[in-house]
Amino acid sequence: MQNYEVVVIGSGPAGKTAAIQAAKLGRKVAIVDDKSEVGGVCVHTGTIPSKTLRETVLNLTGWRERGFYGRSYRVKQDITAADLMRRLNMTLKREVDILEDQLLRNGVDIICGHGRFTGAETIEVEPGAGAPASDPLHLRAKRFIITVGTRTYRPEYVPFNGDTVIDSDEVTRMQYLPRSITVIGAGVVGVEYATIFNALDIAVTLIEPRDTMLDFLDKEILMHFRHDIVDAGLRLQFGQKVASIEVKPKTKTKTNSNSKATGGNGAGNGNSGGDSSAATCVVRLESGRAFASDMVLFAAGRVGATAELGLDGVGLEVDHRGRLSVNDTFQTKVPHIYAAGDVIGFPSLASTSMEQGRIAALHALGETVHKSPAYFPYGIYAVPEMSTVGMSEEEVIARKIPYEVGITPLRETSRGKVMGLDSGVIKAIFSTKSRRLLGVHIVGEGATELIHIGQAVLTLKGTLDYFLENAFNYPTLAEAYKVAALYAHNRMVALES
Amino acid sequence: MQNYEVVVIGSGPAGKTAAIQAAKLGRKVAIVDDKSEVGGVCVHTGTIPSKTLRETVLNLTGWRERGFYGRSYRVKQDITAADLMRRLNMTLKREVDILEDQLLRNGVDIICGHGRFTGAETIEVEPGAGAPASDPLHLRAKRFIITVGTRTYRPEYVPFNGDTVIDSDEVTRMQYLPRSITVIGAGVVGVEYATIFNALDIAVTLIEPRDTMLDFLDKEILMHFRHDIVDAGLRLQFGQKVASIEVKPKTKTKTNSNSKATGGNGAGNGNSGGDSSAATCVVRLESGRAFASDMVLFAAGRVGATAELGLDGVGLEVDHRGRLSVNDTFQTKVPHIYAAGDVIGFPSLASTSMEQGRIAALHALGETVHKSPAYFPYGIYAVPEMSTVGMSEEEVIARKIPYEVGITPLRETSRGKVMGLDSGVIKAIFSTKSRRLLGVHIVGEGATELIHIGQAVLTLKGTLDYFLENAFNYPTLAEAYKVAALYAHNRMVALES
Repeated sequence: MQNYEVVVIGSGPAGKTAAIQAAKLGRKVAIVDDKSEVGGVCVHTGTIPSKTLRETVLNLTGWRERGFYGRSYRVKQDITAADLMRRLNMTLKREVDILEDQLLRNGVDIICGHGRFTGAETIEVEPGAGAPASDPLHLRAKRFIITVGTRTYRPEYVPFNGDTVIDSDEVTRMQYLPRSITVIGAGVVGVEYATIFNALDIAVTLIEPRDTMLDFLDKEILMHFRHDIVDAGLRLQFGQKVASIEVKPKTKTKTNSNSKATGGNGAGNGNSGGDSSAATCVVRLESGRAFASDMVLFAAGRVGATAELGLDGVGLEVDHRGRLSVNDTFQTKVPHIYAAGDVIGFPSLASTSMEQGRIAALHALGETVHKSPAYFPYGIYAVPEMSTVGMSEEEVIARKIPYEVGITPLRETSRGKVMGLDSGVIKAIFSTKSRRLLGVHIVGEGATELIHIGQAVLTLKGTLDYFLENAFNYPTLAEAYKVAALYAHNRMVALES
Repeated sequence: MQNYEVVVIGSGPAGKTAAIQAAKLGRKVAIVDDKSEVGGVCVHTGTIPSKTLRETVLNLTGWRERGFYGRSYRVKQDITAADLMRRLNMTLKREVDILEDQLLRNGVDIICGHGRFTGAETIEVEPGAGAPASDPLHLRAKRFIITVGTRTYRPEYVPFNGDTVIDSDEVTRMQYLPRSITVIGAGVVGVEYATIFNALDIAVTLIEPRDTMLDFLDKEILMHFRHDIVDAGLRLQFGQKVASIEVKPKTKTKTNSNSKATGGNGAGNGNSGGDSSAATCVVRLESGRAFASDMVLFAAGRVGATAELGLDGVGLEVDHRGRLSVNDTFQTKVPHIYAAGDVIGFPSLASTSMEQGRIAALHALGETVHKSPAYFPYGIYAVPEMSTVGMSEEEVIARKIPYEVGITPLRETSRGKVMGLDSGVIKAIFSTKSRRLLGVHIVGEGATELIHIGQAVLTLKGTLDYFLENAFNYPTLAEAYKVAALYAHNRMVALES
């Protein structure tokens, strides 16, 4: 039996941050993770791969330069899965090395294997698949922090085969690029991958049972986003449930017609890479309408990875999606067991998970806990990017706050012109009474970085005048804030006079 | 004689903003500019071309991806001047169209030709070179705003020929790319172009009589910058004055050895494009040391473009560099004549010039003038980019403010890893007493955009805790602020305990 002050189960952003925070306070900490790779590395993240794929796709396709060189411009012809995976593996190896180094440098014990509660203060760790066979380890700790994250939701009716019908965790292990793909589920993950595949000129159909997507975003920004992705050739099929998914061997003569059936949109026929699938997947909707494609990505939801933790034995329950409930300081109803990150649900962002992990560790060790941020940014790494902080226009209306809006197309900024941007907007909402900034919503290139300017002004209670009175580097996209503020200001002046 | 309330002379960022501001107040405004292009377009800017060249060079070379694919990686082989000029012309045309549209939409009269004072309230406009021949126009106005900017300083000893020996205004009209270039003058313009040429794998030698460059920047950031550019193959020759510049016809057999003589650094031999110069330029320093190259770019200073304005007649004097002095509201010593932008000297940034133009117009028309910003960002569009706001470490020391510093390599951020960055740092300086942010200094990818987060926190009096308590999108480069704050915080805690 090994004794620790804190044992963290799961080494994603929440777990890593919790473990390092505890170690920095001089406490004895272990982090347990079952996602071991041969070589003994336990550290794993689900966020970096999709962002790396996105970056690689934008680089190899020359997506950002199409404003200048036209829609058919590509930096590299015949992009293959191997091209994408090469860079992905380099990034993941770096990421893993750095995380492992951070943990070890801070004196955190890394234990590879599946953790399971055997008592209120004890867990058993079964060695993971990649590790050499050995007896289970037994750890004792005064405090536990559960940061196991989620796993993909895999309903019975989906014929997952890891090849032509995959879940979102399997995207980063793709052996070839399909010529067409049907993505089921227009949540954040589905939308990100659908738009990344679309940027590769793969014919993408995105299916969602509801009529809308990403409902937490400002409606006007979503309207721009939806226009941009449809304009880029992505096909949306909203408002109908999937009735069945069938995988059929592909016959040679049918290859072309199948590909065309899905790739009806103009931009969708371009992926001339040699890779292709040997099967045809047919996704049938409740209306009977059907879509054929080389591949199906099922991305409709994730569930807390709590099933095998032995939570029953310590008196903890999970909801229907396997998630744990916590209080303000991330304690579960069993006070010495904390939970943070995706396993507790919304917002399920790496950034907020890190904050949660830090706060959980501080509280668990009796340290002062800094207050949770008033506003946090939300970033969606689709093509184009979106990011948001503060209130949407709908929220401002619901709260009956008198407001004015400034909207600037990024192409109106000096840097937007230099970059040849033809889409993207920034929307800033101001209170007409206090002149305070209430919310910022961005779609387009650099959104996830640019939002932090608005976040600082919002959090530090800045007003419209901050943007009017301060100079912005020229050329930058950040100037869009100033232009938006000028628009709002001019409209406010016009109404006053 | 045409009558106006305000006549603005020069249509750069200061002039454009002044004219539009005056027009928005409902006043009759004309803008006079002699940089007419055939087609009647008078609007011109000197900033956008170099930034567009920079963007084009980074895209076509794949510079940003070399962290992944190695130093020899190039998106396009054999980049020619035509490749660069094509995109430049597209951007300039858009820029000119938009500016002209902005001016006309606001009801500003655009007058092409050279303006010259003929009395305290009158100017004569001689039609420009591109315009049809006609009699001079005469304009009368109650207020003038001089925003004529600068022209290149062209000393007698430099054998300018517009081909192999050029000034910085001639870069954007280059007909071919040299295989080697000697840049004289390590001011902002010289440094920007030297590093852009270097990114094209042209062998670049940068000569500067002083031992240092860009002295207004934080020394540590400059150290990183200097390391990065030398590491990228740029040769610096500081501390010696140029004694002579000679242009000799190139003999065929000598081509190779000449090119090698300058391209002694490893990265410098790469530009395999077909373009080349027919002459060899020899730059000799006072020590007798000499440098041979295909081309010389003389970038040692600019002077106010005031010589032909007839300022003597209205009682205005300029300094030895042709610059005008102004007060806080940008009035010259002749109260109804204002000046703004590069013609008044430091900081000579498009961003600050726009603010100056706006303030000048407001004051000239008796409107309330908003206060000048407490802090303005400074952006240097070299490869890599630099940007700075607030106090440098040297200034903090000089003012005897107790401080702590946080420095984060951008490669330590999640997005830095995704992008494969291997250089770039962000440095944040905090007061240990008030915990206030005092200055931010960035070298590397995205510096000019990222600085605006620091600018907002600085201006709105945010502290170290702002960064500790708030979440940043993951992955972003903006996270570097948080990491830097954590470093500073940990060091402050260690000193307290």
